[in-house]
Order: sequence, then structure tokens, then C-alpha cells
Amino acid sequence: MIDIERLAREKGHLIDKEIEEVFSGDVPNLHDAVRYHMDTGGKRLRPLLAILTYEALMSKDARSASSAEKDAKILPFAAACEVLHNWFLVHDDIEDGDKVRRDKPAMWVKYGLAHAINAGDYMAQKVYELILNSRKYGVDNEKTMDLLEAMVQTSLRTAEGQAMDINMRSASPSEKDYMDMVIGKTAHYLTVPMVGAAILAGRKELIPKLVEFGMAIGPAFQIADDVLDLTEGKGRGEIGRDIKEGKKSILVIHCLGKCSETEKRELLVILNKKPEETSGEDVLVAKHLFEKYGSTDYARKKADGLKGQAMETAKSVPELNELLVFFADYLVNRKK
Amino acid sequence: MIDIERLAREKGHLIDKEIEEVFSGDVPNLHDAVRYHMDTGGKRLRPLLAILTYEALMSKDARSASSAEKDAKILPFAAACEVLHNWFLVHDDIEDGDKVRRDKPAMWVKYGLAHAINAGDYMAQKVYELILNSRKYGVDNEKTMDLLEAMVQTSLRTAEGQAMDINMRSASPSEKDYMDMVIGKTAHYLTVPMVGAAILAGRKELIPKLVEFGMAIGPAFQIADDVLDLTEGKGRGEIGRDIKEGKKSILVIHCLGKCSETEKRELLVILNKKPEETSGEDVLVAKHLFEKYGSTDYARKKADGLKGQAMETAKSVPELNELLVFFADYLVNRKK
Repeated sequence: MIDIERLAREKGHLIDKEIEEVFSGDVPNLHDAVRYHMDTGGKRLRPLLAILTYEALMSKDARSASSAEKDAKILPFAAACEVLHNWFLVHDDIEDGDKVRRDKPAMWVKYGLAHAINAGDYMAQKVYELILNSRKYGVDNEKTMDLLEAMVQTSLRTAEGQAMDINMRSASPSEKDYMDMVIGKTAHYLTVPMVGAAILAGRKELIPKLVEFGMAIGPAFQIADDVLDLTEGKGRGEIGRDIKEGKKSILVIHCLGKCSETEKRELLVILNKKPEETSGEDVLVAKHLFEKYGSTDYARKKADGLKGQAMETAKSVPELNELLVFFADYLVNRKK
Repeated sequence: MIDIERLAREKGHLIDKEIEEVFSGDVPNLHDAVRYHMDTGGKRLRPLLAILTYEALMSKDARSASSAEKDAKILPFAAACEVLHNWFLVHDDIEDGDKVRRDKPAMWVKYGLAHAINAGDYMAQKVYELILNSRKYGVDNEKTMDLLEAMVQTSLRTAEGQAMDINMRSASPSEKDYMDMVIGKTAHYLTVPMVGAAILAGRKELIPKLVEFGMAIGPAFQIADDVLDLTEGKGRGEIGRDIKEGKKSILVIHCLGKCSETEKRELLVILNKKPEETSGEDVLVAKHLFEKYGSTDYARKKADGLKGQAMETAKSVPELNELLVFFADYLVNRKK
């Protein structure tokens, strides 16, 4: 059984050290803004996934070394995955108008719009600086280049997914549109830590299976996230934030396909309101409609189905099966 | 004598082809937004500088090949320099609240804030995709890696300079603060096309001299730009835009050091107004103060002095002397 909390404690400082080293400058409203954001916590899930995948693909001999030693080659890439994730969050919060991140003011609220856009750009460059640093730990040029290529393609697909997501707010998407968007926005960058680990372990032949796993678990994660927004609130200071932002979540799409014309109009009026004009009562009305038409159940089942699909793929990679099963479960059944 | 207009026509389509290939997708409000911005023109100055530097460093034999053939290895990097420049412009326009770019609505005005941040991020990734593409033209891993390293460091320094620039709006900077900011924000990314060319031509020993040239011509360019804002308007739809944005230009810094306490207060009130609240008369008052205290002349002389310094450095690189002299002159004496 994988003890993720213990592993996070054990490996966390290695990742943090790697990150701190590249953000050690002192330009006001840049380095402090980045540190402010990175210190708001986050689960360091992606770097941990990179490290655990890498270790699982190692030879037994290599695995017996000390943690710092055996993980050295993957550390810069693992840290890059964490910085990538946080760069997206900094810019996403602006794009979505989210004022709260991990129960604290979002970077753009604290440092202003201009600094937050610029600091996000700075973080994006650090992703590549970190990967180029891999060479210092003895990673060869060929593998470094493969890591860079994987990261560039991941970022591009994620930005495409984000554009689709923004477009969907003012459209009536189908479930297929939703799935395309979510695969773009979520699947690639949940998968890239494992892809990087496979590259570094000299096991590129595993990549297609890892991508297949990601294409199922990414949407499962996002759908679980859609449900979570209505039940636990995702650390963004409130429940139903997605409704306020007018997001076309899987719940909304399902509900719009089932409810009456009157209810449809009612739901769309609520979603089209500006976030600050959407009342708590509006959120309750939407939530009630989701329950009336079984949309929340539908979403839960859809997430479980995708998770099952991911578990099935995981079986075909025996060395990673335990890790992938744990990860799938963790992502879909998490509480915040 | 270098005929920049003719060269731009001759090489422009090679650069554009390289850029169009990587932006050929069709996600609405992403690919069209990027094309909208890239098509608003721009002088393709940076890619041209990369190509011309590369050709000047070539052996005579290599130079006699056709344009497409002899330039092949530098093209992706040259295109990357152009995309880098445009990504900065897309995000800068948001950060500065600039609504007009090259006499057309800025991307964020036409496509909205969310899409413009995301499209800028997308362009930033394309910079690296382009450089990784160099390998298709036979550039080896070592040189590709050096190009990536140069580009990452350039982007990082530029973002640091941009943070200093944003900070300066609410502070009383010295001329040294101004120079630090401007070297960060301008010098590195004017220099990187030449640095890339030196890497690809196998002439890395020239890089320190190229950087020295850039550290003088970058500020000279920015100071000329500060003056231009008051005389020609830089294609941003109006004259005195920098005053409206409250930019601490070299003119402002010089003037604040010379004028009376009353005039100082008057100038700061104007600079601290929101752009939309600054009147044409305010701009004239500021302009009058700059003239009264010789700030415009001071700036012109400062730019000329830095240009002279750059020319001096250029002499020590005989193969590039003609090109660097032309470029220095073009940047500092341009009219828009």
C-alpha cells in the first residue's frame, strides 16, 4: 500500500530544494510573488508521481541507493512538473476571475494583474531552465531533449484545452465537446510526470500505455472535480464556484439535456450572471436541478467508468500497476 | 549598404512560412487570435538580424548557396525570435493597459483578457517548439541545447526587467534604476538573435562581444523609444501614451531631478492619473516641462552616446561590423 503522506514528507524537501534554487532572485513583486504562490501549499502530487514512476522502473540495484541519490536524475523534471502546474494556476486564476487559491488571495489579487501575468511567464520559463538543469545530474542530451519535447507538447495541448474551456462558457457544448476540452486541459499534464520518468528510465516503449491511462484518468479527475465543487469547494473559499463562473461542467451539460425548457432557461440565466452577481440561492437552484435530473449521480458514474478504464490500462504495465491504481483512486476519490 | 526593406521582402516569406507551420491549428479564439496578432505586421526585425548575422559568419562557399538553402539551419530560431517578441507584446499590452497595437485593437481588446493571456502562453511554448524543430534541418543536439539555453535565459531576464518596469510606476527611480530595468527588459532580447546565429555558426567566442553590443544598444533603443512616444507615437494610436500610463521614462527621471518642487508635484499628479483620465492638455504640460529642462535633448544625447559605445564594440567584430553599425543606426534613428 502506498502511503502518499509519508512519501510527500520524505521526498518533498528534495523537490522544494530544486525549486527554491531556481527562484532565488530578489526582484520585488516577482520572486516574492512566485514564492508566495508556491508556498500556499499544493500537494506536490505531480513531482511525487514522477519520482515514484521513475523508482518503479529502476533496476533493483539502483533502487537500493539513498533517496537523494537514486532520485537525482528525475528531480529537475519532477520540480518542472510542479512549476508547470503552478504557472497554469497563476494564469488560470486571472482567466477565470478566481480571487482565492488554496484559501488565500490569488497572486493577481495580492500583487496585481500586471505582476501576476509577468510572474506566470517567468515561471513558465523556469520549467525549461529546470529541465535543462537535468544535464548537471548526468542526464544525456538525447534524453534532455526528449523531456523538453514532452513538456512543450504538454503545455501546448493544455493551452488548447484552456481555450476550448473559455469558449464553452458562451456556447452549448455537447458531452463530446466537454471530453475534448477536458482531455486537452487536464489529461496531458497529469500524464507528463510519468512520461518524463519513462524517458529517464530508458523505457520510452511504455509511453503509449501511460498516455492511454492519462486520457482516461484526466477526464475522470476533472469530472470528480466538477462534483467536488458542489460538495466540498476545492479550497477556493466557497461551494459552487464553477456555477458562479458559468462553467459548462459535465453536470451542467447533462442537466441541460434532460430538464424542461423553462428550467433550461433558468439554469442558463444563473450561469450567464457575472460571478459577483450570482447569489447563494442561485447556486442552490442549480444544485437542486442537478439532483432532480440525476446529473450529480451521472457525473459520479461517468468518473467511475473512466477510472475503471484507467485501471484496466494499468494492468498492462505490471511494474507500474500498483502505483497507477493508487493514483487513479487518489485522484477520483479525493476530498479537496 | 544594407537595404533592409529589400532583405525583409526577400527573407520575410521564409520566416513567415516557418511561423505559419507551427500555428496551423484551428481552435477558435486561439489560433485565429495568434494569427490576428502576428498579421498586424511588425518589422520582422529580429529574425532578419538572426539571418544576417548567421550569413555574415558563414564561409564564402556556404554563402553562395540559395537563400532558402543557406538559411535553413537558422530559420526556426529566427522565427522563434519573432514569436518571442510577439508573445511579449501580447502580454505587455495587457500589463500596460494598451488598447492599440500597430494601429489596430490589441489582442486582449479583440479576443478578451482570458484568451489573450492563454494565447500568449501558447506562443511562449511555440518559441521552444520552433527551436526543437532546428534538428529537422540538421542542427545537432549540442547546438540545439545551447539555443534553448540562450532563449530561456533571455526570457527570464526580460521578465525580470518587466517586473522592474511595473514597479517603477509607483516609485521614484534613479537613472541607475532606469538603466537596470531597461537592460533587463530590452537588451537581452535584442541580442538573442545574434547570439543564436553565433551558436549555429560555431562562433560562440563572439558571444561576449555581442552581449556587450546589446547592453549598449538595448538602452539606446529604449531611450529613443521614450523620445519617439512624444514625437511620433509608435503606432499606438496616440502621442504621449507613456505619460498616460505613468511610465518613468528617462525624460521623466531627468525632468524630476531638475524642475522645481511645484513642477515636480504637477508632473507626478499627471503621471499618477489613470490613462483614461489623463487629458491631451496634461500630455502637453508634461511635454512642456521636458522641453523647459532640456530632458528631451538629454535623452537624445544619452541615446547617441550609447549608440557610439555600441559602434565602438562593433569595430572589434570585423565580420559583423557593417551589420552592427547599420542595426545600431536603424534602431536609434527610426521613426516608428
